[in-house]
Amino acid sequence: MTDKLIIFDTTLRDGEQSPGASMTRDEKLRIARQLERLKVDVIEAGFAASSNGDFECVKAIAEVIKDSTICSLARANDRDISRAAEALKPANSGRLHLFLATSALHMEKKLRMTPDQVFEQARLSVRFARNLMADIEFSPEDGYRSDPDFLCRVIEAVINEGATTINVPDTVGYAIPELYGNFIRNLRERIPNSDKAVWSVHCHNDLGMAVANSLAGVKIGGARQVECTINGLGERAGNCSLEEVVMAVKTRKDYFGLDIGIDTQQILAASRLVSQTTGFVVQPNKAVVGANAFAHASGIHQDGVLKARDTYEIMRAEDVGWSANKIVLGKLSGRNAFKQRLQELGVAMESETDINNAFIKFKDLADRKSEIFDEDILALVSDESVTHSNEQYGFVSLSQHSETGERPQACVIFTVAGKEVRGESDGNGPVDASLKAIETHVKSGAEMVLYSVNAISGSTESQGEVTVRLQNSGRVVNGVGSDPDIVVASAKAYLSALNKLQSKADRVAAQG
Amino acid sequence: MTDKLIIFDTTLRDGEQSPGASMTRDEKLRIARQLERLKVDVIEAGFAASSNGDFECVKAIAEVIKDSTICSLARANDRDISRAAEALKPANSGRLHLFLATSALHMEKKLRMTPDQVFEQARLSVRFARNLMADIEFSPEDGYRSDPDFLCRVIEAVINEGATTINVPDTVGYAIPELYGNFIRNLRERIPNSDKAVWSVHCHNDLGMAVANSLAGVKIGGARQVECTINGLGERAGNCSLEEVVMAVKTRKDYFGLDIGIDTQQILAASRLVSQTTGFVVQPNKAVVGANAFAHASGIHQDGVLKARDTYEIMRAEDVGWSANKIVLGKLSGRNAFKQRLQELGVAMESETDINNAFIKFKDLADRKSEIFDEDILALVSDESVTHSNEQYGFVSLSQHSETGERPQACVIFTVAGKEVRGESDGNGPVDASLKAIETHVKSGAEMVLYSVNAISGSTESQGEVTVRLQNSGRVVNGVGSDPDIVVASAKAYLSALNKLQSKADRVAAQG
Repeated sequence: MTDKLIIFDTTLRDGEQSPGASMTRDEKLRIARQLERLKVDVIEAGFAASSNGDFECVKAIAEVIKDSTICSLARANDRDISRAAEALKPANSGRLHLFLATSALHMEKKLRMTPDQVFEQARLSVRFARNLMADIEFSPEDGYRSDPDFLCRVIEAVINEGATTINVPDTVGYAIPELYGNFIRNLRERIPNSDKAVWSVHCHNDLGMAVANSLAGVKIGGARQVECTINGLGERAGNCSLEEVVMAVKTRKDYFGLDIGIDTQQILAASRLVSQTTGFVVQPNKAVVGANAFAHASGIHQDGVLKARDTYEIMRAEDVGWSANKIVLGKLSGRNAFKQRLQELGVAMESETDINNAFIKFKDLADRKSEIFDEDILALVSDESVTHSNEQYGFVSLSQHSETGERPQACVIFTVAGKEVRGESDGNGPVDASLKAIETHVKSGAEMVLYSVNAISGSTESQGEVTVRLQNSGRVVNGVGSDPDIVVASAKAYLSALNKLQSKADRVAAQG
Repeated sequence: MTDKLIIFDTTLRDGEQSPGASMTRDEKLRIARQLERLKVDVIEAGFAASSNGDFECVKAIAEVIKDSTICSLARANDRDISRAAEALKPANSGRLHLFLATSALHMEKKLRMTPDQVFEQARLSVRFARNLMADIEFSPEDGYRSDPDFLCRVIEAVINEGATTINVPDTVGYAIPELYGNFIRNLRERIPNSDKAVWSVHCHNDLGMAVANSLAGVKIGGARQVECTINGLGERAGNCSLEEVVMAVKTRKDYFGLDIGIDTQQILAASRLVSQTTGFVVQPNKAVVGANAFAHASGIHQDGVLKARDTYEIMRAEDVGWSANKIVLGKLSGRNAFKQRLQELGVAMESETDINNAFIKFKDLADRKSEIFDEDILALVSDESVTHSNEQYGFVSLSQHSETGERPQACVIFTVAGKEVRGESDGNGPVDASLKAIETHVKSGAEMVLYSVNAISGSTESQGEVTVRLQNSGRVVNGVGSDPDIVVASAKAYLSALNKLQSKADRVAAQG
């Protein structure tokens, strides 16, 4: 047992499993870079055997990220494990993460296997994996609802085969801190070779207790790895939030007595990047990263805060990346000032060409908007057209009109494979009319399952950032677009989503 | 000690303290009615002595709500207590909630009082309150960071004076479940008359553990009241979420063994009403009430859910008010179908006139939009112009145009005290131009601190619901507007916010 708590981020794997949170390779790379800046110990980059796309993502991240261990999930079978190991080959430090369900319910209903079959498969799969890689994590899926006797038998066997990390997931978010902590302590006490592995917790938030359960697994159970995601992204109610678990361990060091390698000042940038990429908003009253997390309203509290900060604050906003003074750029700011601000914001551009493209957009924006905030810059660089020049669809121009009593009209000019086309339509509103205008040519047949808008710095003078989520033949993609004109931002977001549907379709076709 | 867990909702008091969440009297009444339908045991309706407006809100709720106990917060002084008692006079069942800080930090820095002075004031204030009302709650503010010896002394004294509920707040969200549970157990064991009062927990979510801390206070500490808010609304990272704590106790009845009076099927309607009223979005990965809380994405999980629901679900979506089949109304639906749907949605209209007004809006919407979803109906009735006819500003019509390369233009016609005016302006986008057009006449000088849009049922064919938050001379208000045209919805929201600023200003002037 060490005094260090290992932070294992699974935003790119478990987080991506949220309906609508699927990401492109470039988006995943951008997030992986931010996770590296955050000094996450382990990045679970994907589930390599699940698709060629996921394989390529894991591989690309393994090639680029050097400071964090890169991990791929794999079912406990030879094919999955081989694919994962292959994808991880370029990694400085790679980890295979095997999982197999051990609860009676999952074994019977999902796997249709007997406990003895599961035991054998777990053991043999770890043996197979260990021949490919030294760092092996094993997760008995739905572990917390598994029979403890059976679980002890399986875990002892996989540690004997060489598993170096044992993760006990609360797959359905059913645990209570006291019970979960004792469950893990009990396993560790009963399993003779338990000290040969690092123990890990993986909790879901269905009852709102993922963070507390994870920390009970650490404090009471003796786990030394926490699996978590930025903003608590993940299926259903999501996973344990990285930002909450990290700040709890830091703020209550008196109780936990553990070191954490995270650079907490990178937390807010990571939160915003993940939120912008997935279109999953962060609610204002979200701990640590919500807009109100460090804001005070009532007269009594304000008075208290003015008299002594400690009366109502246990953390400092600056420590998680909130800065009181936003540097504002404007029309006259040059390329160097822009580039420097990008660096300060933790945005790494892939090439000088990308910086140039972003700078052109910046100047264009500065012509229309007198003050440029940090949020504008982040929106601008996350606008995908910066890094993609050869996409199927590209925005050119838009004209729209609405008037009470008449049906809103829009005309959109955009490119299809480089060729300009013009679509016109009416609609329920100017946004609806604009997207229908695009559809007159594209005829995607896609269903819109989410449309959301955020004004980036609070007022309507700022850019609007629009997220559009489209669904087609079981594929779900998000497109993001930003512009001071909300209708234009919507059209850009829609085209971006169509591009992703296209590239996903191409990928699936390539796999077929 | 009883087997019933008392649910004390403080959405209207602690929740309203969130920056930007202040509500009008009518909004508070609407939420109070929903809390009554939810069968909340105690509704903290406000802080009567803090302003005339709050006094009137507490009084109005005390007049209308009959099934829940109505509570007002009060500082531990005679004036506050008298005002609170007066506001609560109409209540079927009323409670005075006194608070006084007991931590060394708060006593010294905020109150500038010695512990002995605090002890005396606590004792005498409860004695004073007890003469006015039988149901007295006492909260030692920042209790969890207070010296246990001193806290025991204060609590024993206030119970002797007749306090019937003792609430131990974790005011700054610093607690850990194990420590907080033991803290309360220790107090209850040490204080000789502790069994004469019901013990209560009040936790903040700064480290993401409010729910787990509250439940540890219940299970380990023996508390039998939980203070919470809908959607976890509250200052900074907010309070313990009602929906999470209730569903945890229900789902894990095997562990808690407690009864709860809440009608859980009203949870989602309450969540939506609070979110729409305050403009505080609920993130998709929020437990219980988030859009994804019961959604599954990954192939493995979908397969599991299909094979057996229990594999990945511990609660049923229907039990918290999610319904799989949305009933859709349309152009041909009559007044009775509309009225019946309102009832099924748990929307209580104040009069037949209100229903008629809402129905007119419904028909108007149905003319423009082929399918009407539940969300459209909820947006329609929460659009404040339904219940307010004599406001300062009213929307009449709008015309706007934007075209790439030109500056967007808008013209808005609206009423000021019944008289039609026409404003024209350009802006960074059509929304900005429209709001600037309104400002050409109004000249409010208000700062926009939040602008957010939600498409109500996922696609751009649906209505857009816009929330605008304005700040002026220290007052913060939210305006909400909905329309299939996002620019029109924005103008309506802006006018609604201006009306609220106006009525707040009137109220303050009346108090002065």
